[in-house]
Amino acid sequence: MNKSQGACIFCQIVAYKAPSSRAYEDDKVIAFLDVNPVTEGHALIIPREHYPDLADIPEEIAGHMFVVAQHIAAAIRKSSLKSEGINLFYADGEAAFQEIFHAHLHVFPRFKGDTFKIDADWTNKPERLQLDKLAQLIKDRMQPVSPRAKSIRGKGKED
Amino acid sequence: MNKSQGACIFCQIVAYKAPSSRAYEDDKVIAFLDVNPVTEGHALIIPREHYPDLADIPEEIAGHMFVVAQHIAAAIRKSSLKSEGINLFYADGEAAFQEIFHAHLHVFPRFKGDTFKIDADWTNKPERLQLDKLAQLIKDRMQPVSPRAKSIRGKGKED
Repeated sequence: MNKSQGACIFCQIVAYKAPSSRAYEDDKVIAFLDVNPVTEGHALIIPREHYPDLADIPEEIAGHMFVVAQHIAAAIRKSSLKSEGINLFYADGEAAFQEIFHAHLHVFPRFKGDTFKIDADWTNKPERLQLDKLAQLIKDRMQPVSPRAKSIRGKGKED
Repeated sequence: MNKSQGACIFCQIVAYKAPSSRAYEDDKVIAFLDVNPVTEGHALIIPREHYPDLADIPEEIAGHMFVVAQHIAAAIRKSSLKSEGINLFYADGEAAFQEIFHAHLHVFPRFKGDTFKIDADWTNKPERLQLDKLAQLIKDRMQPVSPRAKSIRGKGKED
């Protein structure tokens, strides 16, 4: 899984077997321009190694991808590219619109009048009791996060 | 900027002055359920401190937010919540759909038939030369990323 996958276009890009327009690279990740951009400057940050799913990416590399996204976003804002805001987007799984199964984080500039739109059924406003129940379902399945951050015992809900 | 902002709803949530349904917390971040979810289980990861913009979040905390998002995503997938995929979404700036100016990372379950849709003008497929030019604009404005990753000198474009 962690090895380069011959058929994977992103692995080919990492290995310079397919063309890309790189904006940043280090020993863990590369950032290059999306060939089918939402807006001009749309970049992808990918790990050099082939991790299909979000859960496959080692924490250290996942965290680094986000920090690099922060830097790419800042660089876009400082550049002459049209940008009044930035979106980061990550798709994990086909149902979430993942198309290439090598982990990648999208960074794209936004501005008033661009064509990017999000739609959803925004009418759903669950009761607090229901939200508490859903939070508990997630909490029950949480695995320990690496000790980068000191764990805090919940103080109870609203006290 | 790094202090709690009285009028900020997320600062109030951090301080238990407003209700929330928490799924995770540590000394740097908290994760709680969105009151207006895209899908059931939609969570937000926020730093405890008040950083309005993506660029304001210290790298260590930004990276940690993403790692916590990874864990929340994994927990959602293992839970009884309906989930065939996960999206992570970050809005930086009003033009990018940021509504609350305390940094937050969205994590929401996806499944076939849910109501979440993305639309954009997908017809734009720039020439390689144009992508190279855009990548260079970003590269020129990149600030050094912290030495977590060893910097790599570009080998030139496609060699």
